[in-house]
Amino acid sequence: MMARELRAAVLEASRELAASGLVMGTFGNLSVVDRGAGLLVIKPSGVPYEDLTAAHMVPVSLETGDVLEGSYRPSSDTPTHLELYRAFDCAAVVHTHSEYATMFAQTRTPIRCMGTTHADYFHGDVPVTRAMHEEEIASEYERNTGLVIVETFREAGMSPLEMPAVLVASHAPFTWGSSAGTAIEHARVLEYVARLEWRGRLMAPDAPRPEPFLVDKHYFRKHGSRAYYGQP
Amino acid sequence: MMARELRAAVLEASRELAASGLVMGTFGNLSVVDRGAGLLVIKPSGVPYEDLTAAHMVPVSLETGDVLEGSYRPSSDTPTHLELYRAFDCAAVVHTHSEYATMFAQTRTPIRCMGTTHADYFHGDVPVTRAMHEEEIASEYERNTGLVIVETFREAGMSPLEMPAVLVASHAPFTWGSSAGTAIEHARVLEYVARLEWRGRLMAPDAPRPEPFLVDKHYFRKHGSRAYYGQP
Amino acid sequence: MMARELRAAVLEASRELAASGLVMGTFGNLSVVDRGAGLLVIKPSGVPYEDLTAAHMVPVSLETGDVLEGSYRPSSDTPTHLELYRAFDCAAVVHTHSEYATMFAQTRTPIRCMGTTHADYFHGDVPVTRAMHEEEIASEYERNTGLVIVETFREAGMSPLEMPAVLVASHAPFTWGSSAGTAIEHARVLEYVARLEWRGRLMAPDAPRPEPFLVDKHYFRKHGSRAYYGQP
Amino acid sequence: MMARELRAAVLEASRELAASGLVMGTFGNLSVVDRGAGLLVIKPSGVPYEDLTAAHMVPVSLETGDVLEGSYRPSSDTPTHLELYRAFDCAAVVHTHSEYATMFAQTRTPIRCMGTTHADYFHGDVPVTRAMHEEEIASEYERNTGLVIVETFREAGMSPLEMPAVLVASHAPFTWGSSAGTAIEHARVLEYVARLEWRGRLMAPDAPRPEPFLVDKHYFRKHGSRAYYGQP
Repeated sequence: MMARELRAAVLEASRELAASGLVMGTFGNLSVVDRGAGLLVIKPSGVPYEDLTAAHMVPVSLETGDVLEGSYRPSSDTPTHLELYRAFDCAAVVHTHSEYATMFAQTRTPIRCMGTTHADYFHGDVPVTRAMHEEEIASEYERNTGLVIVETFREAGMSPLEMPAVLVASHAPFTWGSSAGTAIEHARVLEYVARLEWRGRLMAPDAPRPEPFLVDKHYFRKHGSRAYYGQP
Repeated sequence: MMARELRAAVLEASRELAASGLVMGTFGNLSVVDRGAGLLVIKPSGVPYEDLTAAHMVPVSLETGDVLEGSYRPSSDTPTHLELYRAFDCAAVVHTHSEYATMFAQTRTPIRCMGTTHADYFHGDVPVTRAMHEEEIASEYERNTGLVIVETFREAGMSPLEMPAVLVASHAPFTWGSSAGTAIEHARVLEYVARLEWRGRLMAPDAPRPEPFLVDKHYFRKHGSRAYYGQP
Repeated sequence: MMARELRAAVLEASRELAASGLVMGTFGNLSVVDRGAGLLVIKPSGVPYEDLTAAHMVPVSLETGDVLEGSYRPSSDTPTHLELYRAFDCAAVVHTHSEYATMFAQTRTPIRCMGTTHADYFHGDVPVTRAMHEEEIASEYERNTGLVIVETFREAGMSPLEMPAVLVASHAPFTWGSSAGTAIEHARVLEYVARLEWRGRLMAPDAPRPEPFLVDKHYFRKHGSRAYYGQP
Repeated sequence: MMARELRAAVLEASRELAASGLVMGTFGNLSVVDRGAGLLVIKPSGVPYEDLTAAHMVPVSLETGDVLEGSYRPSSDTPTHLELYRAFDCAAVVHTHSEYATMFAQTRTPIRCMGTTHADYFHGDVPVTRAMHEEEIASEYERNTGLVIVETFREAGMSPLEMPAVLVASHAPFTWGSSAGTAIEHARVLEYVARLEWRGRLMAPDAPRPEPFLVDKHYFRKHGSRAYYGQP
């Protein structure tokens, strides 16, 4: 069985994702990439999380998108993951339909950075993609979803390292990170800040934003060369 | 004991329903039909979910509505189930008072299709029945509830296969499916999309709907002859 | 040890109440009455639910309000319970600070009957007491709380049998019933219908109420001589 | 190992905090002070709650802020805790990003005292600090956070004993108490009253406040020399 370690990592992370409450039923998926080996491993399509084994995990060529071993169909969103790995410097991608983040995606509303909880993880507002055109949906829909995400970051000059999350319009969120655990953590915190922002927005729509120097302070307290949060 | 397998299926599914958080106390009920044998089996009325055994399950004639065996009263909503089986092509019916879907039913508000989570399961807005007349309530109330549901689909030209859910005005939801598991899954997803829609509607009442081609893409990605979601 | 059976019943019900999620910390209390013996048994004041034993339970004279045995202080709300037993035909009283019902009490907003879930248990809108006067609070506050509840029902000509719940203004709910289990069930359903009504009211404040004949149908389907819900 | 008992207390309380649902991931922290020994013990920075042992706990000098033993970095918020211990008479400090209280902090909205649940613990509205200036954030940010909290109480003439909680603008809450358990209890109740107030405010923004004599009655029923709640 090829990619044995990656399969194990994706299996374990898929179980963590299932336990996180961020996915329901068979919604959601997760992959991890091995750039040296030129492949990613992803959850199979439509298999209940509780039935998953390492043998279900599907290795897919990073270059061609072909399944490299086994008879399981990869997640239908695999072409989206592929485009994200091609454009973004990250090791894992997570897709959920988590409740509040999905609601922001459905209403095409960015999640504004309104406090330090948000700034600890996301350096600015979490963006929403443009709506996709009919032809982008008719053919290669999942691949075009990835391309539209990449376009969103490129056009806004946004760094996928400082903003490891996106809301796909009328659909749901994707997050990524330097490991499966980090990508899941980003999905968790994304959901949490969506909850904070939804409630705050209903109660106090005109509340002032945090000052930019407070946002920078919290983001760079945890990230980059001057970080001092956590153990050395 | 007749209908032994169906009793076991209804018992197991009732336990799954109780564990789902979609019912509270003795609210809610579930039945499975055997069209060949001309009967359905349904949960008894007002017995706590944790006390249920196969012997409590009540076989009822699909034609006459009579209890075919045993001394337990069937769910008081049995005549509603009967009318749904008579009119709709389905194998199981579930009734819950799940929190958000019931709130939409109480306010007589359709659950709009606002994203792909919804479109993956329900092909359009989830409809609300008209309010029932005094005479429909005074006599054969539960049977008339079923007839009003059927009328709602007939008058709107809606397919119960593509829309396996309805909200009964001032009351609560019913869902159905090709098996007990599917009918419960529809009840779960109905509750989930009700949560998404309620929150989105409060925050962004004028948010654009998903384009019809996106709705169709997601619905038919999972249903019908061109489906490619899941394992072959 | 006197009132051994009643102590056991109050202990068990207090544990059920703690597990219900309707109370937090040491908030909330529960009593059961033995009218023949002229006493009630109530939870002690401020003892964490997980530490409770039968010996903690406090028997109190229904006539004088005196503690009849032991050295534990009864719940500070005991005089409220006493006034409810004196005026209402019920066997158990429950007081919680459950989240949604308390919020309705705090905003002095009745919980409107907006659907059949509500009508299955409460025959009409759940009332709010008037605010208490300074002198009613300065002296015998807890007893006056009970008297204000009784006044609310008397002045509205409301039956405590058909409406086994009340919201004390700026404070929290009380419920009662024909047994400890029933009083807790009323507290549970009260919280549930408060959740439904809060959400519905925010989304659709002008939604039509259920027709009176639908409310009566559901209430009397479960209560009174023509009830046909549950097992005979 | 120094401060063995304090380490054990902070470890146990940190586990209780993790189980409380008030913190997520590595957010939040807790310390306990030993004024006689001139030190506090605090959770280490960025270590997952489930990995914590007594050896991770960091003793810090109350006077100099220096780590007194071991190689773990204390929570990055340690200087905030230090300033609180210097100015307020309390034995433990807790910092969370609990969902509703954080949302009030983010929107810079005080949590109004709207009922007896609130008045049982907090004698008045829970205050919000002013926003911090750029220079307060650029240098000694965490220490200045503590100073701004202390300033808030001093300028409002508020007693930290009667108001054991604060919301730091655009950030999150801090609570304190006479023991680790009490400080956590304050964090729990703070979150609870934030939930009540948020929901009430959305539904009934103009609802009357409780009368001052009702607030005093509940606060002093539980606190001070005339308290009669709980066991003697």
